[in-house]
Amino acid sequence: MDRVLYFFDEFIKRDDGSLNILGKTLKIALTLIIIRILIKVSYVIIDKAVESRKKRIFTVDEKKLNTLTTVLKNIIKYLYYFIGILITLDIFGINTSSILATAGIGGLAISFGAQSLIKDIITGFFILFEDQFSVGDYVQIGEFSGVVEELGLRVTKLRDFSGELHIIPNSSISVVTNKTRGAMRALVKVRVSYDEDIDRVIGVLDGVSEELRRSNEDIVEGPTILGVTDLGEYSMDITVIAKTKPMSQWSVERVLRKAIKEDFERENIRVPYPKMDIVSGSFGRDR
Amino acid sequence: MDRVLYFFDEFIKRDDGSLNILGKTLKIALTLIIIRILIKVSYVIIDKAVESRKKRIFTVDEKKLNTLTTVLKNIIKYLYYFIGILITLDIFGINTSSILATAGIGGLAISFGAQSLIKDIITGFFILFEDQFSVGDYVQIGEFSGVVEELGLRVTKLRDFSGELHIIPNSSISVVTNKTRGAMRALVKVRVSYDEDIDRVIGVLDGVSEELRRSNEDIVEGPTILGVTDLGEYSMDITVIAKTKPMSQWSVERVLRKAIKEDFERENIRVPYPKMDIVSGSFGRDR
Amino acid sequence: MDRVLYFFDEFIKRDDGSLNILGKTLKIALTLIIIRILIKVSYVIIDKAVESRKKRIFTVDEKKLNTLTTVLKNIIKYLYYFIGILITLDIFGINTSSILATAGIGGLAISFGAQSLIKDIITGFFILFEDQFSVGDYVQIGEFSGVVEELGLRVTKLRDFSGELHIIPNSSISVVTNKTRGAMRALVKVRVSYDEDIDRVIGVLDGVSEELRRSNEDIVEGPTILGVTDLGEYSMDITVIAKTKPMSQWSVERVLRKAIKEDFERENIRVPYPKMDIVSGSFGRDR
Amino acid sequence: MDRVLYFFDEFIKRDDGSLNILGKTLKIALTLIIIRILIKVSYVIIDKAVESRKKRIFTVDEKKLNTLTTVLKNIIKYLYYFIGILITLDIFGINTSSILATAGIGGLAISFGAQSLIKDIITGFFILFEDQFSVGDYVQIGEFSGVVEELGLRVTKLRDFSGELHIIPNSSISVVTNKTRGAMRALVKVRVSYDEDIDRVIGVLDGVSEELRRSNEDIVEGPTILGVTDLGEYSMDITVIAKTKPMSQWSVERVLRKAIKEDFERENIRVPYPKMDIVSGSFGRDR
Amino acid sequence: MDRVLYFFDEFIKRDDGSLNILGKTLKIALTLIIIRILIKVSYVIIDKAVESRKKRIFTVDEKKLNTLTTVLKNIIKYLYYFIGILITLDIFGINTSSILATAGIGGLAISFGAQSLIKDIITGFFILFEDQFSVGDYVQIGEFSGVVEELGLRVTKLRDFSGELHIIPNSSISVVTNKTRGAMRALVKVRVSYDEDIDRVIGVLDGVSEELRRSNEDIVEGPTILGVTDLGEYSMDITVIAKTKPMSQWSVERVLRKAIKEDFERENIRVPYPKMDIVSGSFGRDR
Amino acid sequence: MDRVLYFFDEFIKRDDGSLNILGKTLKIALTLIIIRILIKVSYVIIDKAVESRKKRIFTVDEKKLNTLTTVLKNIIKYLYYFIGILITLDIFGINTSSILATAGIGGLAISFGAQSLIKDIITGFFILFEDQFSVGDYVQIGEFSGVVEELGLRVTKLRDFSGELHIIPNSSISVVTNKTRGAMRALVKVRVSYDEDIDRVIGVLDGVSEELRRSNEDIVEGPTILGVTDLGEYSMDITVIAKTKPMSQWSVERVLRKAIKEDFERENIRVPYPKMDIVSGSFGRDR
Amino acid sequence: MDRVLYFFDEFIKRDDGSLNILGKTLKIALTLIIIRILIKVSYVIIDKAVESRKKRIFTVDEKKLNTLTTVLKNIIKYLYYFIGILITLDIFGINTSSILATAGIGGLAISFGAQSLIKDIITGFFILFEDQFSVGDYVQIGEFSGVVEELGLRVTKLRDFSGELHIIPNSSISVVTNKTRGAMRALVKVRVSYDEDIDRVIGVLDGVSEELRRSNEDIVEGPTILGVTDLGEYSMDITVIAKTKPMSQWSVERVLRKAIKEDFERENIRVPYPKMDIVSGSFGRDR
Repeated sequence: MDRVLYFFDEFIKRDDGSLNILGKTLKIALTLIIIRILIKVSYVIIDKAVESRKKRIFTVDEKKLNTLTTVLKNIIKYLYYFIGILITLDIFGINTSSILATAGIGGLAISFGAQSLIKDIITGFFILFEDQFSVGDYVQIGEFSGVVEELGLRVTKLRDFSGELHIIPNSSISVVTNKTRGAMRALVKVRVSYDEDIDRVIGVLDGVSEELRRSNEDIVEGPTILGVTDLGEYSMDITVIAKTKPMSQWSVERVLRKAIKEDFERENIRVPYPKMDIVSGSFGRDR
Repeated sequence: MDRVLYFFDEFIKRDDGSLNILGKTLKIALTLIIIRILIKVSYVIIDKAVESRKKRIFTVDEKKLNTLTTVLKNIIKYLYYFIGILITLDIFGINTSSILATAGIGGLAISFGAQSLIKDIITGFFILFEDQFSVGDYVQIGEFSGVVEELGLRVTKLRDFSGELHIIPNSSISVVTNKTRGAMRALVKVRVSYDEDIDRVIGVLDGVSEELRRSNEDIVEGPTILGVTDLGEYSMDITVIAKTKPMSQWSVERVLRKAIKEDFERENIRVPYPKMDIVSGSFGRDR
Repeated sequence: MDRVLYFFDEFIKRDDGSLNILGKTLKIALTLIIIRILIKVSYVIIDKAVESRKKRIFTVDEKKLNTLTTVLKNIIKYLYYFIGILITLDIFGINTSSILATAGIGGLAISFGAQSLIKDIITGFFILFEDQFSVGDYVQIGEFSGVVEELGLRVTKLRDFSGELHIIPNSSISVVTNKTRGAMRALVKVRVSYDEDIDRVIGVLDGVSEELRRSNEDIVEGPTILGVTDLGEYSMDITVIAKTKPMSQWSVERVLRKAIKEDFERENIRVPYPKMDIVSGSFGRDR
Repeated sequence: MDRVLYFFDEFIKRDDGSLNILGKTLKIALTLIIIRILIKVSYVIIDKAVESRKKRIFTVDEKKLNTLTTVLKNIIKYLYYFIGILITLDIFGINTSSILATAGIGGLAISFGAQSLIKDIITGFFILFEDQFSVGDYVQIGEFSGVVEELGLRVTKLRDFSGELHIIPNSSISVVTNKTRGAMRALVKVRVSYDEDIDRVIGVLDGVSEELRRSNEDIVEGPTILGVTDLGEYSMDITVIAKTKPMSQWSVERVLRKAIKEDFERENIRVPYPKMDIVSGSFGRDR
Repeated sequence: MDRVLYFFDEFIKRDDGSLNILGKTLKIALTLIIIRILIKVSYVIIDKAVESRKKRIFTVDEKKLNTLTTVLKNIIKYLYYFIGILITLDIFGINTSSILATAGIGGLAISFGAQSLIKDIITGFFILFEDQFSVGDYVQIGEFSGVVEELGLRVTKLRDFSGELHIIPNSSISVVTNKTRGAMRALVKVRVSYDEDIDRVIGVLDGVSEELRRSNEDIVEGPTILGVTDLGEYSMDITVIAKTKPMSQWSVERVLRKAIKEDFERENIRVPYPKMDIVSGSFGRDR
Repeated sequence: MDRVLYFFDEFIKRDDGSLNILGKTLKIALTLIIIRILIKVSYVIIDKAVESRKKRIFTVDEKKLNTLTTVLKNIIKYLYYFIGILITLDIFGINTSSILATAGIGGLAISFGAQSLIKDIITGFFILFEDQFSVGDYVQIGEFSGVVEELGLRVTKLRDFSGELHIIPNSSISVVTNKTRGAMRALVKVRVSYDEDIDRVIGVLDGVSEELRRSNEDIVEGPTILGVTDLGEYSMDITVIAKTKPMSQWSVERVLRKAIKEDFERENIRVPYPKMDIVSGSFGRDR
Repeated sequence: MDRVLYFFDEFIKRDDGSLNILGKTLKIALTLIIIRILIKVSYVIIDKAVESRKKRIFTVDEKKLNTLTTVLKNIIKYLYYFIGILITLDIFGINTSSILATAGIGGLAISFGAQSLIKDIITGFFILFEDQFSVGDYVQIGEFSGVVEELGLRVTKLRDFSGELHIIPNSSISVVTNKTRGAMRALVKVRVSYDEDIDRVIGVLDGVSEELRRSNEDIVEGPTILGVTDLGEYSMDITVIAKTKPMSQWSVERVLRKAIKEDFERENIRVPYPKMDIVSGSFGRDR
């Protein structure tokens, strides 16, 4: 076999061991064949990735996916062609470093511009992988909050309480606050006049809590009266908290407020309207 | 054929295998021909891309497009010339690394400056591709909101409610809030005195809602009375919400406010003006 | 001819194929000639670019342009000289990589510092190209607003309403708000007491609008009464809007305010001064 | 042995010392074998790292870990394949610098996007290593505070007092405030009228403190009366502080407030309601 | 001559064409001579640049300039020495790539640190070149405003109205607001009670304006009464504006305020003190 | 000896001067030995550095140090192995540039992520070296203040007055405000009615100061009455300052406030409660 | 001599011109000698720089300087050793590019971390060189102000009025406001009732100014009455300014306030307490 190999060598090389025109042509042909194969292989990989994606949670509609696939395939094709041209030039002994440098600068500029796109995808992957939130959860991301309507690789869509649709690129997502994992807390601050007896007020509030605990099934852990949480200018704050099912905290607060207002009225506990003391400007006790 | 190739080789090379003057001239000629072909090909690609663009949604007027195409073609032409000169120098054995380094630094500076241009285009593409908003939608981008008037590859134009035209580079667009996708929410907070009976107030509000639901066809989901949403200093807040067609939420709110005011007046539910309690500074019940 | 070429080769080369002293001298001379030609060509290109610029919209005065051209030509000249020295050293076999590395670091530092200059020019080009605003327009850029007085490649000058001149580097321009493209909106909020009948107030406002629409020709689309836009502590807000010619919105608002005030006075609709309810601290209806 | 080696050399090399087709095939085979071995070794290392991780504090569930491991193994496998192809091409004398440059630009873009992922892991490691906080601690990170529920290599999860779950990427963690390391401080500001005698007020507060110190076992260091900490418009502030067990500071403050209010009432120390001095506009003493 | 060249060649080279010890020595000597010449040339260029600078607008004192020149010359000298050592090592065949890499990292760190210095100088040049402001102008830069006292290549010094001296590095200068280019605007807002007749008030203001226009020569364009610019809670705003010479706007405003106050008093137009409406909490007209 | 060397050369080289299989094996062996030695040397250096660290001020506990040392040694070991494999491949003529490029991109990504770690250590070193603060000092760093509890190379721990422990990475430390270096200043603002005689008030304050200077030994420089520091709406501010021992400024302020309040009461200087002038809306003197 | 050189060449080289073992040993020895010399030279340069520094304005104490010098010398020594090892390996034909790449990545990470250190020193140099401020000046840097206590190459120390010591890294210094260069301005705003005659008030203020100008020698340019600087809700503002010696502006303001208050009282100019107009809600003149 050595003979055959040697003969082949002899055929495509000049005396100094470099390729002759025939050898170069063969090499270019080989290069082009490899490039075609690589393009096909890349296409198959993309198609397979898309196929597996379709079966997953990502709610991307098919038309968009096809457009994106076509764009991606085109980019890959032209990239391989560009590499093929460079290799061909190189085989003919034309120095390609100047072309490479020019393309490198351009590629750098593009990769600067594209880096947030890549960050979108990496962050999107981790949100899904770590199950930070799923469609239907009520979350807060930065200054935007709402129910998650769509969870894609590049953007996340939140439907605000006001009906507005926030479209957030995943790379803009840093801290996520999920408001539907575990029991939420309802909190009502009741302002009471300094003239009232605290123990009596807490007694009335205990009655309200007792009743609500029985009647309202959104409450997970019964309303608790924390005590005097602030001594204000005209009034004291007494705080009542309760643990509720997720998304029911606001309705529980509303029910709690109504019940407290009505019981206070019944028990004759007064509303602490702002007070003003009209003086005539003297100091101290000798007034 | 081997003979011919060998003879050709003999003709353009010196004994040590390097090209002679003739060979070099041939090589330069070849380089220039390839460059001319590449320029032509690039022109055709640009023209085709522009042609396909014209038929699309992008609302770019033709004159601008022609200017841009000319500029782009010029840049590409001079780039190819620059590469051609470098290759020619290289063939003559003049070291071009110093020229390349100089050009590289300059190219780097330009690519730093141009990166937001590239980000404009990438973001613009994704806004279109993902259909985040379209012309006529009412959106909010950062601190600017308005109706989308133009949606280009580099900038997006919003017409504000005040008539002002916001021209936003796409690279400045991060979170987009689209206010015309799905039903919006109208919300009216009604302040009621502590002296009123909550059930009676809610009854009156129910009446208002009932009537509006029938008469106003912008309302998608009837006005709902949420309950006591705040216990304020002088008054309680009772909140009424409704789902409306997009862009009608403000008119629904206005109609709701007028109806509530008129019904409250009819039912003799008082406006809770700020209250002040004039005291003479004593503490507690022994006053 | 082969003979001549061979003889020439023989003359400038040593036996091992490398250039002899004579060949090197010839090569250096060739390099210097090429550099001189390149300098001249660069000068011509700069001059042509400047000439074409002069005829355009850019309001650059001639003296500045000459200074800038001279500076630019000097920089290019020294850059070519630097490259020439490097190539010469290289021909003499002195390794220039250390010089290149040193110059590269310096060039990098300069290109970092110069990148905002390049961004100025790129942004300036796009503002002009996309006709985002032109001299005489009233625009807002970031926190600065005013009438555009000059629109250059590097800076934009705004004359503020207060007479101050804002000089803004184009690279600092992101979102542009143009206030002279299309009709503007005049908006007047009228505060009305809760004691007034809303329909009667709207009737009076309709009268005012009717009159103004006829008498004021700055109004493009007649003043419209939107309805009750807020229920405040002491008063309701009723909003009137109108579409006006650009820059007339403020004068229309002033005329509107005067007319409303006078008609309200004539119709005896009272000014809703802040109200205060003096109580003696009891709760609820049993007072 | 020299003979054998020489014979082998002879067999795989051409006369000019470069490899012949056989030699190249052998070299490629060798390369592929090494790559397979490296893949296996990498797999083993990953499996071992995961195994040791499972036994540690990181509360990652097994399914996620398996997914991540599979993804990581795939990435490594394709990376090795890519290197293998490059080496093969190189052996056949095809210039791979253009492929490398293209891949390098892509790799750079990915590494830009991935850098916050790496920062997540480095910061996560140091939080664990330095024991900055552990599961169950009450901490504040940036604007978010809550009880640590999970402490992973990439994200940290805080359960807010309101029940909301904050998911914070470790790279967003800079300053950590741990509220469960050592005694906390309860602080109550008491507003007292200027008409009161300070020493008498402090006497009353001392009584309250004395009592609480005995009855409340959450207090680590008895309530101390600091003195007059502010001279306000209508009142003086007197501040009481106490050292408490972690997380009990709020309950101690509530108990303190209630006790102070009740003792003040008993001792007839008045609430300092806002004061207003009604004058008739004259200056100075000649009024 | 060929003979002589050949002989010279023979003398400094070994058989294989590389330099012998003598040739290397000669090459090093040549390198050192070139370096010395380059140092001298650099010195001359610096001196010339400094000389031409001295005659210009830059107000740099001579002593500082000398210090800076010395520092700069030293840096250049050591830089050339460093390059010389590298070339010498290279001639002796010692691989200098490791030294170059080490120095490159250091140089990169320095160039990162120095980039704001370079930005200072580039921005300083453009401020001067574009004549954005000159010594004596009253300008605002970022949050600082004052009279320009010194305008250097690296820093700009502003003397604030309060006497403080702001020293601003040019790289921190982005938007410049020049308050001494063209007429400035004086603006006085007059609050008038709702009880007044608007036409009568405007008549009085017209009288004031008429008088001031004649008596005050700082006014470029007579005070104009704009009309009702706001409908406030207790009062209407009527705005008067005037165009004045630069820096006189404040004195014109003060004169205007005084004249308006005095004429209003003469014409018996009342000061609109805050109004309060004491009610007893009833709703609507049935009070 | 020349003979021996020559013989050795003959043994490990082929005719064309490249190494034969034996030579390559020898070279690899040599490489591995050098790598083993380097690993050992690195271990010794780390151990020595750790040993010297233990004796210093850094309050790192031993267990952590051991963990860190092990991690560091592992990283170094694998790094050397990686280099060893690369050199081995290189000796066998396998092109390693593709592996190097891949590793380089990875290394770059890691070094981006690790840069804040390095900045931690550099800043930590300078804080220690410059003695900016030491354990027990009361400092403010950014928005956090407290007593320094631990001062490490990577983080600094502050114990807040509220008992919270702030853990601050050193790289987040920019400006440090040290409140325990030199005398601090106590400052009390006293509000006094416009009806009081300023000289009499200052006389009373002088008396208070005189007394305190004698009785309070925390005061370094006696309380000084600065004078009238503000003319407010209802009252004048008179400011008293004193220099105190560090950390005693607050207690001195409290003592000062109490003394001033008591002396004012004794001297019958009134508290300046807010004043309101009830008018009937007329202008000027003709009321 | 040619003979000797030739003989030497013969001795250290093999037939193919590469170095033999002896030659390599000689080359390594030469490298090590050069490195030792370079270390010594670097030491001398550092020592000289430190020596010259000691005599300068920098207030660095000697102990710190010695520590720093030792650290610097160690770093340089190990750097040279590292380069030496690389060159040695290179001479033995071991490819060092992989080691260099590894070290380069590390060096890059370090240089990222160290860049703010270098910026510290560059900024520090310019502050000193441009004499922006010197020890004892009262300056404002960012949000911190105080008397400069120490001015180093890396940090600047400010002693705040409150006694706190701000330690500011020079790289954090951008705009410097120096408050001790030139005369400062004292400014007092006097509020006067609308009932007063402006000319009379200005007359009284002129009297105060006249007196102060004579008695107070801190005043550089006599107090000037600017005029009516604001028309407020209850009162007009009349502003008095004066130019004073640096740091005396506050005491001059205090003296000015006291004098104005006393003269106003003497001249019976009333304090303009807030006014309130109690109305009964009617509109306009028909009340």
